[in-house]
Amino acid sequence: MKLFTVGPVACYPRVLKAMGEQMYSHRSKEYIDLHYDTVKHLQNILETKNSIYLFSSTGTGFMEASVRNCVKKKVLVCVNGSFGKRFVDVAKANDKDVILIEPPLGVPIASELISEKLETDPEIEAVAITHNETSTGLINPLEELSKTVKDYGKLLFVDAVSSMGGTAINVDKWGIDICYSSSQKCFGVPPGLGVGSVSLNALAASKEAKNKGWYFDLAIWEKYHKEGKGTPMTSTIPQVAGMNAALKFIDENGGKNWVYNLYKERNKEIRNGLSDIGLFTYPQKGFESPTVNCINAPVEVKGVTVYEAMRDKGYELAQGYGALKETTFRMGNMGYIEDGSIRTMLTALGEVIDSL
Amino acid sequence: MKLFTVGPVACYPRVLKAMGEQMYSHRSKEYIDLHYDTVKHLQNILETKNSIYLFSSTGTGFMEASVRNCVKKKVLVCVNGSFGKRFVDVAKANDKDVILIEPPLGVPIASELISEKLETDPEIEAVAITHNETSTGLINPLEELSKTVKDYGKLLFVDAVSSMGGTAINVDKWGIDICYSSSQKCFGVPPGLGVGSVSLNALAASKEAKNKGWYFDLAIWEKYHKEGKGTPMTSTIPQVAGMNAALKFIDENGGKNWVYNLYKERNKEIRNGLSDIGLFTYPQKGFESPTVNCINAPVEVKGVTVYEAMRDKGYELAQGYGALKETTFRMGNMGYIEDGSIRTMLTALGEVIDSL
Repeated sequence: MKLFTVGPVACYPRVLKAMGEQMYSHRSKEYIDLHYDTVKHLQNILETKNSIYLFSSTGTGFMEASVRNCVKKKVLVCVNGSFGKRFVDVAKANDKDVILIEPPLGVPIASELISEKLETDPEIEAVAITHNETSTGLINPLEELSKTVKDYGKLLFVDAVSSMGGTAINVDKWGIDICYSSSQKCFGVPPGLGVGSVSLNALAASKEAKNKGWYFDLAIWEKYHKEGKGTPMTSTIPQVAGMNAALKFIDENGGKNWVYNLYKERNKEIRNGLSDIGLFTYPQKGFESPTVNCINAPVEVKGVTVYEAMRDKGYELAQGYGALKETTFRMGNMGYIEDGSIRTMLTALGEVIDSL
Repeated sequence: MKLFTVGPVACYPRVLKAMGEQMYSHRSKEYIDLHYDTVKHLQNILETKNSIYLFSSTGTGFMEASVRNCVKKKVLVCVNGSFGKRFVDVAKANDKDVILIEPPLGVPIASELISEKLETDPEIEAVAITHNETSTGLINPLEELSKTVKDYGKLLFVDAVSSMGGTAINVDKWGIDICYSSSQKCFGVPPGLGVGSVSLNALAASKEAKNKGWYFDLAIWEKYHKEGKGTPMTSTIPQVAGMNAALKFIDENGGKNWVYNLYKERNKEIRNGLSDIGLFTYPQKGFESPTVNCINAPVEVKGVTVYEAMRDKGYELAQGYGALKETTFRMGNMGYIEDGSIRTMLTALGEVIDSL
């Protein structure tokens, strides 16, 4: 089966080799060296001097950490689909008041909507934005939105789950307080590891927070990080080793711009191919994700029918998600995709669409 | 390096092979089959009909889940060392009042101490017990202690991190409400996966709980579990595959009693060897752990000196932990240990002790 999933994605052979290495202690010199080398590479990817923690959880752990540590009462959440909705669920589950911005599906967040909310409700402490919404294949204009949030001096949380390592993010310049992702998307590493950068302002908020819990307490993470101990609990060592292998692979090929261009090229080839077949992607023009494609199924065809037919041909795409489950299917271009695979996949897709 | 660590432990080759397999979606039929097959095997190990969740976290995630979901105000925590202390930290971080039972290090919990506390403080809602304390190499008489807790009708949380899969636990008969462990101990799987059984009474308490968070909300986990969806967030697929391989390996060799006997035999060989060298283990006689040995370093020798000297000889043991860091070193007998390795390790240890 050839994978064009939206995560977990297919992993490069050298990442899988790292995943299968024999274990050792997470308190050993070997692990600590691996840990901080991985942190250094991620700081380079994110262009940040902020601390980076390697959570023994998925990226969702950082959603919980953000609201639990850094929001006393009220947070503004921008929703472009299912993962923005998950942030709302997480914030409410942590007893926070949620103010919502939710444009129609497929439409990006406009900075005017953010400034309007922040202007009228000064109690809002922080703003959460999904950079790249995996459920709708939409990318938000993050640099511009960040500027607005920072103009009002609010904390900024960015869900970069399907964008980090796939397109440029400049954490320090844009002023992102918590910027997080998961191993199983653009990095092409199996799931089980959350990575995120945390600013001094976020840490200051964490110090004031009550009833934070232990597992995602940023103050505890910072203590272990600064003391050179890595993680408070046992680290998810294989995924850290896999992430390290992926980051070194990127470096050997020319660094982050190489992988951003690679994903852009793959994405262009896919979009051109879809257009040739007569298919259209979901989100508003100009805001199509460079890593995840959400494709409208032909009229009167269910998204899952295309998905199943492609499985029969040996290609694992992804089903539609959330509100678009019925009418769309999705296709990622992250992780390990062999040369020529996109072309053969598109040929198969053309045959499937013709046959329906 | 040959590993006699206390976790992460060395993994069997077939487990490492499973860890290195190519990824696929956690919503695919392939993963769902793997997930529920793993659950079924774990229910057999724990002799329970309770739901079992596969957390995308370490075992500590279940500490957080226990207190946050099932304790409104007050919990009794039994402490035999560092991991009992961690439970205290986690409970306090979740804003719970902690009542403490803490006998001198190396001494097990007596059921009279539990009944005394429960008798005098009816506000206590739940009792937390570390079955096998990894930091001191002590095992508590869990069946007896469970009976006392159940006599008072309290919820019972058992940290079985270094005992589950290494010695018998009968969840349903003993009435354990939440019984949890991690992949990287007795199961011989890399870290990054928490496994735990959750009773109907624990779920009923969760339904009443406020401000539970999302990541470890047992009601959400139960919903996904019952609907056949596995995990609410992305599953840590490689470790689930590794766990499945380990559980099948146990089954092929004769089931859980086979592995309990294997660990007992290994442990006996180690303890006899230590005795021959003139070394003594830490905890009170009769309560020595069958999986982790905490060994007093010779007088005027630091534990870490023995640990380092053994590393030079190609054996990775474990350093002392917490209050015993200076005076002890530790040695596990879990996971992948090749035939004859214990003998050669003990010979090396004898040489190290002679030379000091």
